[in-house]
Amino acid sequence: MTGLITDRELQFLLYELLNTRELIQRPRYQALADDVLDATLDAARRLASEVFAPHYAKGDQHQPEFVDGTARVIPETARAWSAFAEAGFLNAHWDEDEGGTQLPETVFRAAMALFFGSNVATMGYPFLTIGAANLLRAFGTPELKSRYLEAMGDGRCAGTMCLTEPGQGSALGDIKAYAVPQDDGSYRVVGQKMFISGGDQNFTRNIVHMVLARIQGAPAGAGGISLFLVPKWLVDDTGSPCERNDVALAGLLHKMGWRNTTSTVLSFGEQGGARGYLIGAPGQGLAHMFHMMNEARIGVGLIAASLAYRGYAESLAYARDRHQGRLPSSKTPGSPQVRLVEHADVRRLLLAQKAYAEGALGLCLYASSLFEDQHTHQDAQRRQHAAMLLDVLTPVVKSWPARYGCVANDMAIQVLGGSGYTNEYTVEQLYRDQRLNPIHEGAEAIHGLDLLARKIRLHDGAGLALFCSVVRDTVEAARQEAALAGAAALLESVLTKLEGVSAALLRMQGQDIDLALANATVYLDVFGKVAVGWIWLQQALVATRALAADPARDAAYYQGKLAAQRYFFDWDLRAAFPILERLAAFDRTAFDMNEEWFQ
Amino acid sequence: MTGLITDRELQFLLYELLNTRELIQRPRYQALADDVLDATLDAARRLASEVFAPHYAKGDQHQPEFVDGTARVIPETARAWSAFAEAGFLNAHWDEDEGGTQLPETVFRAAMALFFGSNVATMGYPFLTIGAANLLRAFGTPELKSRYLEAMGDGRCAGTMCLTEPGQGSALGDIKAYAVPQDDGSYRVVGQKMFISGGDQNFTRNIVHMVLARIQGAPAGAGGISLFLVPKWLVDDTGSPCERNDVALAGLLHKMGWRNTTSTVLSFGEQGGARGYLIGAPGQGLAHMFHMMNEARIGVGLIAASLAYRGYAESLAYARDRHQGRLPSSKTPGSPQVRLVEHADVRRLLLAQKAYAEGALGLCLYASSLFEDQHTHQDAQRRQHAAMLLDVLTPVVKSWPARYGCVANDMAIQVLGGSGYTNEYTVEQLYRDQRLNPIHEGAEAIHGLDLLARKIRLHDGAGLALFCSVVRDTVEAARQEAALAGAAALLESVLTKLEGVSAALLRMQGQDIDLALANATVYLDVFGKVAVGWIWLQQALVATRALAADPARDAAYYQGKLAAQRYFFDWDLRAAFPILERLAAFDRTAFDMNEEWFQ
Repeated sequence: MTGLITDRELQFLLYELLNTRELIQRPRYQALADDVLDATLDAARRLASEVFAPHYAKGDQHQPEFVDGTARVIPETARAWSAFAEAGFLNAHWDEDEGGTQLPETVFRAAMALFFGSNVATMGYPFLTIGAANLLRAFGTPELKSRYLEAMGDGRCAGTMCLTEPGQGSALGDIKAYAVPQDDGSYRVVGQKMFISGGDQNFTRNIVHMVLARIQGAPAGAGGISLFLVPKWLVDDTGSPCERNDVALAGLLHKMGWRNTTSTVLSFGEQGGARGYLIGAPGQGLAHMFHMMNEARIGVGLIAASLAYRGYAESLAYARDRHQGRLPSSKTPGSPQVRLVEHADVRRLLLAQKAYAEGALGLCLYASSLFEDQHTHQDAQRRQHAAMLLDVLTPVVKSWPARYGCVANDMAIQVLGGSGYTNEYTVEQLYRDQRLNPIHEGAEAIHGLDLLARKIRLHDGAGLALFCSVVRDTVEAARQEAALAGAAALLESVLTKLEGVSAALLRMQGQDIDLALANATVYLDVFGKVAVGWIWLQQALVATRALAADPARDAAYYQGKLAAQRYFFDWDLRAAFPILERLAAFDRTAFDMNEEWFQ
Repeated sequence: MTGLITDRELQFLLYELLNTRELIQRPRYQALADDVLDATLDAARRLASEVFAPHYAKGDQHQPEFVDGTARVIPETARAWSAFAEAGFLNAHWDEDEGGTQLPETVFRAAMALFFGSNVATMGYPFLTIGAANLLRAFGTPELKSRYLEAMGDGRCAGTMCLTEPGQGSALGDIKAYAVPQDDGSYRVVGQKMFISGGDQNFTRNIVHMVLARIQGAPAGAGGISLFLVPKWLVDDTGSPCERNDVALAGLLHKMGWRNTTSTVLSFGEQGGARGYLIGAPGQGLAHMFHMMNEARIGVGLIAASLAYRGYAESLAYARDRHQGRLPSSKTPGSPQVRLVEHADVRRLLLAQKAYAEGALGLCLYASSLFEDQHTHQDAQRRQHAAMLLDVLTPVVKSWPARYGCVANDMAIQVLGGSGYTNEYTVEQLYRDQRLNPIHEGAEAIHGLDLLARKIRLHDGAGLALFCSVVRDTVEAARQEAALAGAAALLESVLTKLEGVSAALLRMQGQDIDLALANATVYLDVFGKVAVGWIWLQQALVATRALAADPARDAAYYQGKLAAQRYFFDWDLRAAFPILERLAAFDRTAFDMNEEWFQ
């Protein structure tokens, strides 16, 4: 099918940019077959193309329906879910003793990218289930795991994350759902949750909800929140659903995109309290949730990158095929029309998409490799460094691909023109689906605050310093290649300004925290430019060295990488300068905007 | 209703920024009542709120259906159409002897902005009809006018523009529809047209299609194209429909937005040829169409501005109402939550929207005033200057509001977060509706080429020189106000660089036309920054002087104007510098991108 990330591109990112093949030398992966990486990607590509992609448009055009208290989705969803589960993708990354195959994280994520690109809306269910299962794996009691985990791994049971409530939005500390302790150690959970993706559907027998709520009497704020497992159906000792829990589907939300993922309002405890089980420690609910959120946030970045890539590939295929107009230098009426790709502006729209999509993919797979290193690298310092870098980069990994994915998908529509605005072509659905990514798993502003107020301050700024140092390593290496010396100098220059701005904003946090954080979203954006510029410089280094080693091998592919790097540096990275100037000046325009002045 | 441009804002733009009241002193307007301006706007606001706005969402959710060869739309559309016609808005701007009231263009456009903001999809029908009628008025024979014009003015007959064909897209010179002369002076028109908005519906008895086609034997290219009036129903001598013409609805296109405007494929002449009547001179079809296109392009800019404004107003109302989270300086759990508008980043999103929406509105109404001056100013040189300025600015007026309207509507969604992604709130529909504006009436790239290859070269560059000179007049005036001196210097600096880049690109057109035009879309964007910066500096001048004259009168309103100007200058206008550098360097990155390198 058109639009999935090509084999060549995944090979480049996994094996030339990242050293993914080396992973399977690590002790944890000794039992894996030599060809597990390629075999996994092949299986994912086949399933994504054959089972997920064909109903991408249908799921969009037939929204879930609320029938007899249940959400009903198109039947293709059930078939895709089963195929995904049967192929072992729900639990491939689990430990062997949990029933998994210990597949390395980076490869697992690359496989997910193929699925996301094929049908992000149907993938909502596995995505949420994998996240919920990871919470249970990390913090659940053995007994809870024995009851629910196996079914979440083989597809009998789906999972959700229940954070948001109707009255609170991004301010998780203010949630009102509460839990009343019972004599048997369980809880009765009461409250309403909103925007719960996959909160109900009609293709799994059971659904496990991971619910944030306050144990009665807990203190206000984030420290009073605990995490509960609340199943749709209670199960018996064999793990079989036996009794309906007090969880009701209160309504379906109708979204601009991701339509085949149900978005629900759930009522817990309308009949006296839904039975729930504490996960982890009381009052640690948000902490547990955040512990797992790095994964989910890399996941959102990867979704955004996959949609951007699909739009790039779809619009490229159209531009190669469609004849229209002539070049400015050859306007003779009646002369043959050229293909769209021959127009300079269309190439600009395609090259920008390539720069955004492949830059975002590179960033997200790099983040996955940090996640991998954090947990499985043999060297303790490397584990620690990976964890610190990932901490700093997570807000960027979540946000940059989402924002520039929207830009990329906008450009894909523009390449197709009027056709791109109709549902005859996939690009308009991609545009709508993409728009969720700057919102879910924390709206963009939340990540700006996370980066500026928390992440770059952690460990006395050691994470930020480490980031700057690894970027400079790449800059140094690039300086050795004549063709990349200019790009290296540009990145170094932007990085140095970013360092200065970061230090100034950190100092300002001690004086006026509100002013210091006023432009945090802009800071996040420009930090992203540097991070993705760095990823692109690494890609360009690989390409330059490959061309030097053998100018005939894959030359067109590598030249494309070099062109995308140049485009990103000249048009996007250079744009960082005026932004950094405004940040350095503690721009107060929006900060000082009096509410009454909005008219 | 929430979201329509406020009375205060229209007063500011029409009477404080532009001297619209002076218009009615002109001879053409002597018969108008003194209160015609306000009365027109009041009537438009009432109708827009009460008749158009209520079915904006319904029209989106119930797409037109293809039933028995006809497009069927929701019945509210017919009622809105009739009310619009009965209130005299279809022909208010026509000459008295055509049955109009000679309403000044600027006021007519301001009234349209209210309608566009209320329900752009239902407004598609009047918008197209007004454009088609203007073509008939300008170039039709007296006989054709006597048959069709009255019905297009009182609402019995709608109109369309039939340019695009399935195989040709933006390259109008390549259209294939043809017309065969008949003995009676009429033609038989044969061909297929695509993306025809309002091409069929079930609420007017007749539809007049303005069709581009080649008279058989005409030369290839743009010079061989003529314009024809092809009615859905032929009419008798009294103007009554009497015989179905050979025009068939071949299909409906399903669009991302504007869903209540039918988008059709029309087949002309499947039964031997649709009867058509030549409008204007043979071979002058495109020229005639372009002659009228300034109006339509101002119209698209105004639509984009109206949708941006509506998104601004809707998200502002939400942000004022909704309590969520706390400021960084007061994170005490359990303390009262603040409203969204109190968060700095939300204010940034609102202020940027205000800057884009009110900047775009100001630009479009200024362009309407140029159109007005071009036709009705007493002074011949002023008429000529207005025409030249409008020529240069038209691509910008069409494109800048469309591009930044998309950015603004994106921000409106972000203010609402998850709610903004659902159809419970209007902002998601605005986002989808807005996305058409960079495509129709010429995709953005077409306007970049128009500006750089044609408009700034016209009259030996006199139009561009005139633009630079009027911008400098404002810069000079702003220098006299201490608070605006910095902004004046910034605009002067960007303008000077733009002049240099323009001269360099014009010289390059003589050497390598393809390279010179390669980044034309980027040039258009940066030209737009200067034009809108100029409009904002004018608005800031008005506000500064008003505050100096009476610091107590409307101070909050004027402070809002000043803040929006500062925001635009600091964040958007400054961003022009790195772009201008790339243009000055004749950046070749996309231009040199080999097709094979896209992988």
